[in-house]
Amino acid sequence: MLPAILSSPSSSSTSTFPLRYSSLSSLTNLSSLPLTIGCRRTSKKSTHNNCSIRVQASSRMIEKETPETERPHTFLRESDEGSSGDDSSKPNSVRARFEKMIREVQDSVCAALEDVDGGGKFKEDVWSRPGGGGGISRVLQDGDVFEKAGVNVSVVYGVMPPEAYRAARPVDNGDTKPGPIPFFAAGVSSVIHPKNPFAPTVHFNYRYFETDAPKDTPGAPRQWWFGGGTDLTPAYIFEDDVKHFHSVQKGACDKFDASFYPRFKKWCDDYFYIKHRDERRGLGGIFFDDLNDYDQEMLLSFSTECANSVIPAYIPIIEKRKDTPFTDEHKAWQQLRRGRYVEFNLVYDRGTTFGLKTGGRIESILVSLPLSARWEYDHQPVEGSEEWKLLDACINPKEWIC
Amino acid sequence: MLPAILSSPSSSSTSTFPLRYSSLSSLTNLSSLPLTIGCRRTSKKSTHNNCSIRVQASSRMIEKETPETERPHTFLRESDEGSSGDDSSKPNSVRARFEKMIREVQDSVCAALEDVDGGGKFKEDVWSRPGGGGGISRVLQDGDVFEKAGVNVSVVYGVMPPEAYRAARPVDNGDTKPGPIPFFAAGVSSVIHPKNPFAPTVHFNYRYFETDAPKDTPGAPRQWWFGGGTDLTPAYIFEDDVKHFHSVQKGACDKFDASFYPRFKKWCDDYFYIKHRDERRGLGGIFFDDLNDYDQEMLLSFSTECANSVIPAYIPIIEKRKDTPFTDEHKAWQQLRRGRYVEFNLVYDRGTTFGLKTGGRIESILVSLPLSARWEYDHQPVEGSEEWKLLDACINPKEWIC
Repeated sequence: MLPAILSSPSSSSTSTFPLRYSSLSSLTNLSSLPLTIGCRRTSKKSTHNNCSIRVQASSRMIEKETPETERPHTFLRESDEGSSGDDSSKPNSVRARFEKMIREVQDSVCAALEDVDGGGKFKEDVWSRPGGGGGISRVLQDGDVFEKAGVNVSVVYGVMPPEAYRAARPVDNGDTKPGPIPFFAAGVSSVIHPKNPFAPTVHFNYRYFETDAPKDTPGAPRQWWFGGGTDLTPAYIFEDDVKHFHSVQKGACDKFDASFYPRFKKWCDDYFYIKHRDERRGLGGIFFDDLNDYDQEMLLSFSTECANSVIPAYIPIIEKRKDTPFTDEHKAWQQLRRGRYVEFNLVYDRGTTFGLKTGGRIESILVSLPLSARWEYDHQPVEGSEEWKLLDACINPKEWIC
Repeated sequence: MLPAILSSPSSSSTSTFPLRYSSLSSLTNLSSLPLTIGCRRTSKKSTHNNCSIRVQASSRMIEKETPETERPHTFLRESDEGSSGDDSSKPNSVRARFEKMIREVQDSVCAALEDVDGGGKFKEDVWSRPGGGGGISRVLQDGDVFEKAGVNVSVVYGVMPPEAYRAARPVDNGDTKPGPIPFFAAGVSSVIHPKNPFAPTVHFNYRYFETDAPKDTPGAPRQWWFGGGTDLTPAYIFEDDVKHFHSVQKGACDKFDASFYPRFKKWCDDYFYIKHRDERRGLGGIFFDDLNDYDQEMLLSFSTECANSVIPAYIPIIEKRKDTPFTDEHKAWQQLRRGRYVEFNLVYDRGTTFGLKTGGRIESILVSLPLSARWEYDHQPVEGSEEWKLLDACINPKEWIC
């Protein structure tokens, strides 16, 4: 027999962690990091086995969360709210303003969705962490229009391995040996799956990431990044809808930099790629990450503009398509495409896979999955059919606006 | 901006490959390696874009497959059928006898399933590879009893990176620098999902793995391993069914070694572990891997016995449960458990994840997924309910037979 370390399934799966997340970029790339980093829930297990709360320190980068009955006015640490003289400690710090923005976006998007749904209401879960940070998960399930809609915000204070920080520094002469680097991350993340197969799924996520200056390496820089995006995943193509959606994204981008839309549109097509199918999850939108080579205030405004564009980009499409009559065949095709959504999220999405490996709050991580999905063996749409046209556009991304 | 290598999503996901599969054990551990290693199908894309056949050499360890209209009498290379004096080249070599065994098992299991289904018939896809090897995929979909049943055999001639071979050798003094190691793998793999929520899903997989002696390292040993297992995944517990299933597994094990059942039962509970849920996929069975520290003939007989035990372990349970009346609530719970099945297979199962990363035949890899699955936000069964009992047994594995 081989040594246990080589043959044990569990050792093999945990050992990938330090290898896979060995660069800071991998951390900041996580499309739903702020959403998902949390703690495995223990309430379920406590009814079964009092001693089964297994916290694996090696795979946990942040503290365990505790449920809250009320939303706090902020998830920032007190020191981040006061005025210690540090830039991050002012009420108008980027941290504070980003948190305010994502919470306002959560409120406005949830209100708009409840309004268009007419029947469904969001259920809310709030949690915090002893050392600061926390989150609000809101889910509307089985409404009149929406099958499942999750809109989450989260604020995380964590610590990353020093290798991650070192790997991301442009020049590393190997002289410095920093210890673990504290980081701050905040974000809003949402996936909205409607019932009607002609009404598209939308996903958006906007996040901000900062490292503290390492205490044992005087002079090493504090770093910050913005990331995010909004993308559309229909089961059927209505060109007007897709053009409208992309136009709103382009409009938000063009207010800041003419290069943003083409660059972030392509980044989106590249990111939401289901490699084993050689197709994209949907029809794209915009996606950006590790963005720090522009003015910080400009990028904060840009993120805010993008997040505020979700409602005008998406709600008019839902209004138009939510009551379109459909057949069982249309529904089955939507369910097959939902299967692709599951494949992308569980296999490739870095926020999801990272959250699952690090003990994030599972229900928040997996709220992105549709209520139901389907896998048929070797399903091939008839060439030229509406289903085929969607698949073709997922395989060969198009320019929707000129 | 960070260097592209750090920020590009695709580079990040492909770079994990050599890290994650850096030991031979990781390769031989793959629960459906022989099933899944293949090639991305190109037929779909060829109708869309003639130049879109993108074979990424870095993630391909075996040749592209070609569809066949008829089953060949063997997938072995001609040199493996003849008599070159090498042990592997005799008609009664372990390679040849293992292939014969798995093809007989495929035939008998498919016949038994069609018989109990009454209506559904298996659809067959056959493929081969120019340099030897190939496979037969059989799928019964939307039958009277079975929602989706896949039974596949596959024979693979591949090449593994030398690091994999070196890492798996018990003593590596670092003096030898072998080149890539040719390997042979063959296996039968199957997942059977019935429609009735009281009728359990079963999975089985039996595989044999051999390396050639490395040509540039005279004297380095040829290696071989057996792996496999059979496990049951019900949505509801009928103790009699679970006891019957485990008894048949134990019976097969006990014919060979009294230590096998307890050891392989625990291995199964450990392997089919959904870490992010802290629960097992189902109620287990047996699982073993990297098995080479017994007589090779004994292990061939043992694998054969296990594979032949699938029908007596499973079919009587299906006969008993296939027509049990059920409600929409029972069906919804089955669908939620199917969601867990999808989570395990896409996130943890090494055969699936390896197959997806290496360009395996996608439809064969993902035939293990159920026809449909469901994810409800924060679903918690009522304590003491039948659903809770199943979940409890998945969280706290039980000894089903004394």
